Order: sequence, then structure tokens, then C-alpha cells
Amino acid sequence: MAERFVLVLAGGLGERFWPWSRPDRPKQLLPLARGGRSLLASTLERALVLAPPERVVVMTARRLTAAVGRECGGSGVRVLGEPVARNTAAAIGAAAVLFEGEARGASFAVLPADHAIDDTAAFGADLGRAYDVAEREAVLITFGIRPRAPETGFGYIRRGAPLAERLSRVARFTEKPDRELAEQWLTSGEYLWNAGIFVWGCATFMAALEASRPALAGPLGNLSWTGSDEGFERQLEQVFPSLESISVDYAVLEHAPNVLVLEASFDWDDLGSWSAWARRQPHDERGNVLFGDAFALDCERCVVVGDGGTAAAMGLRDMVVVHADGATLTCRISDSDQVRRVSEAVRARGTP
Amino acid sequence: MAERFVLVLAGGLGERFWPWSRPDRPKQLLPLARGGRSLLASTLERALVLAPPERVVVMTARRLTAAVGRECGGSGVRVLGEPVARNTAAAIGAAAVLFEGEARGASFAVLPADHAIDDTAAFGADLGRAYDVAEREAVLITFGIRPRAPETGFGYIRRGAPLAERLSRVARFTEKPDRELAEQWLTSGEYLWNAGIFVWGCATFMAALEASRPALAGPLGNLSWTGSDEGFERQLEQVFPSLESISVDYAVLEHAPNVLVLEASFDWDDLGSWSAWARRQPHDERGNVLFGDAFALDCERCVVVGDGGTAAAMGLRDMVVVHADGATLTCRISDSDQVRRVSEAVRARGTP
Repeated sequence: MAERFVLVLAGGLGERFWPWSRPDRPKQLLPLARGGRSLLASTLERALVLAPPERVVVMTARRLTAAVGRECGGSGVRVLGEPVARNTAAAIGAAAVLFEGEARGASFAVLPADHAIDDTAAFGADLGRAYDVAEREAVLITFGIRPRAPETGFGYIRRGAPLAERLSRVARFTEKPDRELAEQWLTSGEYLWNAGIFVWGCATFMAALEASRPALAGPLGNLSWTGSDEGFERQLEQVFPSLESISVDYAVLEHAPNVLVLEASFDWDDLGSWSAWARRQPHDERGNVLFGDAFALDCERCVVVGDGGTAAAMGLRDMVVVHADGATLTCRISDSDQVRRVSEAVRARGTP
Repeated sequence: MAERFVLVLAGGLGERFWPWSRPDRPKQLLPLARGGRSLLASTLERALVLAPPERVVVMTARRLTAAVGRECGGSGVRVLGEPVARNTAAAIGAAAVLFEGEARGASFAVLPADHAIDDTAAFGADLGRAYDVAEREAVLITFGIRPRAPETGFGYIRRGAPLAERLSRVARFTEKPDRELAEQWLTSGEYLWNAGIFVWGCATFMAALEASRPALAGPLGNLSWTGSDEGFERQLEQVFPSLESISVDYAVLEHAPNVLVLEASFDWDDLGSWSAWARRQPHDERGNVLFGDAFALDCERCVVVGDGGTAAAMGLRDMVVVHADGATLTCRISDSDQVRRVSEAVRARGTP
């Protein structure tokens, strides 16, 4: 059996949780997972179901390696810092070369570090099945989530010819739909959310990248595993700055003919906003989610978070109030998918 | 002419501006006056129109004397610390004994340190007129403000027989009215808001206190001016703890037969809430008041204050968002007269 690796992508900024998330404490390091753990810690737990720690690599921004390393503390997984952010295609390509160098014929799973999944057993079974398929055939396996709502913030995968239970060819990847289209897709049953979780063989992935994005595959193919992560990081310093910054979806999956989609049997949420997070948190009798040093007087259906200070709300309905790290955000819960606008505007003013 | 003194009462806690106001930085020390000055600094400017600095005494809580002293810095006024808070009757009685000891036959004005008045010239003229009257006759002069709205948060003064332009006897002092009564009083023209500003002779005040509250007048009458504020403060330490804590309105004014009311020709606001403060602040083109490190995106008619951190609001209408000193408050502007409920509840939890 081919060796199985896991790549955890932990480079995201997660501005949507500003002011809780900051450049030095992005979403994946916040205690957003069930039980107050970080999403990264929760992702590592799932990764270690798939592979032993020495075959789990967490890739993140170099300036986050210390913080990410602390969060991985004691697990024995490896943390690699990217010298500059170059989106997912470059990171996954580099990992493919690394893993293939360590174990010829290896396959690996790609797991975003900032999603929420609770059913670890179903996750392990589904991923195991994907490794099995990817080791038998030269295919790229993506995970699709059955839509629960007409979400306009996700990419969708249209299923093609069925191959086995929950496993299909991919008819096409699609951009984020408008509301009307999202509602059609929700009822059609033909579409799945693109969860950004993948399984493939190293060689299969590099061949697909070579076919669709040779300018990216070339420099990445020149990387070589020389026995140490530090040595590999030094090679990344040379290669990464000149690479195209593009997602693996755009660079590879939308072009490759050999993409399959496996409909997940596990729960999944990208926790893309305060409202998405709040849905999974315990509520008080008036529907409020209170976290940390938070105080709600005569409030209903509010999210109040106090981290490193007191957040108090009085007489509010359907609002988010966050006090964290010397800043405060207040908005309607229904606007919480636009928090990035605030963090960008505040940053443009020169405040962190 | 009798010597004229000024007593500035600066002992208030001002919990209504929580989290901006805190026990160690109460309302009178916040930059709530026009031009970003503190209300205390603004009050001192008016006090110094009435008397030279050596005859202006600021009474405050002892634990605030350092902060109050810094705010008075360079003005030459005197700061006296009360060992324990005993409300206004005790503070005013002590000042009457102090001033009479310094200059037999003296009169003094009582000015709250946490109100907003912009027309210093009219203030000086009105107060001067009150000193003149109080020096001629043994009367207690209160200042009344012509009501602008059916306020239910103020005490009211019902005018009695007119004596001169804007000067009347007092028919009675009244408690805070309900809304219906406040609207009747607003249109009747017979009622004025009780501004808590007074002028009287020291001997006249002590005689009135002796008549209505002998248990308070007795110990205060035993105080004596021995030539230093420090010596007087040491006497207060002995006397204050056992005194009744009662307002001058309840203790004296509601009982004395010789109370007059002068309708103020100056503007006045007690700045009793965020909404009252916001009314006097500059607004942006969408009606928002932004103060300090404050940021409003798609907001209308909001108050956003960031002191020592960033306060950001998105998509809100008619809300208050305050980030100050490691805490956040969000509420509707229309609820801003209830902020004290929040600060009390938060304090009850053990958070400052």
C-alpha cells in the first residue's frame, strides 16, 4: 500500500472574524471549534486519524509558524512556513513533491485548517475510501457537501456520471451562484458544495498541474526532498516568490478530466461568518450566544463575545457585538458575511 | 461687599457613560465638553469668572483628588477630598463652614462639575445677579432651566410669586414626574428644571440646615477653619463618616421658606446619557457622532466612541457603540438612559 500523507492548509487570514481574528491570530487559531478548541487543533485530530504525525504537514505563513507550532504542540506533526502566500495550487504542488520525495508512490489528503467537522468517524471512513480509490486509479478526488441552504458564498460542484455509492465524475465546477440559481441547485440534487477537501496521488496531482499550469508545475517540480523540512523551506524561499498565486480549483480542478467527487457522509461547515459560527454554539434561553467575558441584558438572538475585555449589550435583537484585542465590532448578524469590509476599511486607516 | 466663593461638586461617579466612565475616571473627567475638554475643566473656567482661584474649592472623593488635581492643574483652585461620600447636603454644609471661617459674611455658588454650559457670559451675569440678591437678603437661590422637552429624569421647580424679571419665589420642589405630567408641565410654563446650581450666604445656608436637619447641621457647625485645607480635610475625616447621606434638595430646599428660583438665561444640559451628549456633538452627513478611534460603515444616527482602541460599527441605525478601557457597550440610543443598569450588572459580576 502506498504511504498516506496529510497536508493541512493553515495559511488563511480569516478576516471575517475581525476583531477576534487578526493577522497574528487568524481564524484557524481562534477557539471556534466545539468545546472551545481551535479549528486547527480540531483539524489535526482528524488528520491523525488518517496518518501518523510524521506524515502530517501543516503549511502556513512563515510569520505564523510559531503560533501554529504552539497550537500543534506535542502532537508531533510537522509545520512548514511559506515565505510568501501563493494560494493553494502552489502549496499543494510543493507538498506533492515533498511527499513523493519521502515515499515514492505516496498519496495525500488536503485539509483546510479552518473548517468545522464533528463526525470524525465518518470523516475517517470517507477519507479512507478516497485514499483507496486514489491509490487504485489516477484520479483527483474532491469532497462535496450536500447543500443545506441556498448559499451564495460557496463554489459548487455539479455531479456527472455516477460511479459508486456517493461517488461520481464531475460534470463541472462552478463559480458562486446568485440567490436564484443557488435555490435551483439546492432542490435539483445535482449540485454539491465544494468543501476544499481533496485526496490524490502525488504523481497524479503533479501530472494534472503540468497539463493545466506548466508554469507552476515546472518550478515546483524542481524542488527536491533532501531529508529535512528546514532544507525544503529554504528551497521554498527561492521558488515561491516568483510563482503564480492561484487556487487549486482554478489551476487544476476546473481543467482536469479525471476529477471525481465523493459526497461526504460527515457534517461540515466552513464557519465563514459570525452567524455560521453562532449556529453551532450553545444558546441561552433567549437565543443568545455568549462567549468569554460577555454580558447580554434584555437581548435576543445576539452573539456577544468578550476576549481580553468585557463585551456588554443591552436591549438588542439579532446583533453581533465583539470585543477583542483592543477593538470592537457591532453589526447585524445578517450582515456578518460582510465583516471583511470593516476589517479592510479599518486596516486602510492604518489601525491593525 | 461680602467675599464670594465657589464650591464645585466633583464627587459624582457618572455610571451612565460606562464603559467610558469608570470609578477612577468618572463623567466629570471625560472629554465630554465642547472642544474635547473635560466637563470639570469647563466648569472651572466658569467658576473663575465668579471668584479668584483661591476662593474656588473643588470637593471630590478622596480617591479622585489626584486625578481631579491634575485636571485643575495650574489654575490655582483648591481641591478637597471627602473621606467618604455623603451626598450634597454634607458637602455644601462643610463648605459653608469653611468659607464663613475664611471670610465672615461670605456667600458662595454651588456648581456641579458634570454639566454642560456654553454661554459663559450669560452664566456670569446670572450668577452675579444671584450673589447680589443673596448678599442683600437671607434667601436661598436656586437656578431653574426652562424645559425644552418632557424630561422624566429631572426634578422640577414650580414657580411661586414673581419678584423681579426671571426671579420668583418657589411654590414647591417636585420629584421626577411621569411622562404625562412632564408634558403638562412643559406647556404650562410654571415649571423649571432643577439645575442643581445654587447661590447663598454661608450663614443663611447653615441656618436653613439647622432648621430642617439639625442632626446634620450640628456636627458640621463644629468644624472650624484653622488656616489650611489639609487641617480641614482631617476634620472631615472625623466628622463625615457619621453624617447622614442626603441631597441638599431633600435636606434643605424642600423645607426652607426662603427659597427663590432664578430662571437661567444660559444654556444648560446635564449630559445625563449618551444621547444627551451626542446632541451637542458635531455630526457627520449621515447623523453619526464619531469620537476618537471610531469607525462607522453604512451607519445612520449612531454614536461610535473608541478610546484606547478601535470601535467599528456596520449597518446600524440609532445605536451607541463604545469601546473604552478594555470594555464595550452596545445599545440603542433610546436606551442610553439605562446604561447604569449595565454598569451595575457588570460590576455585580466582579468585572470593573
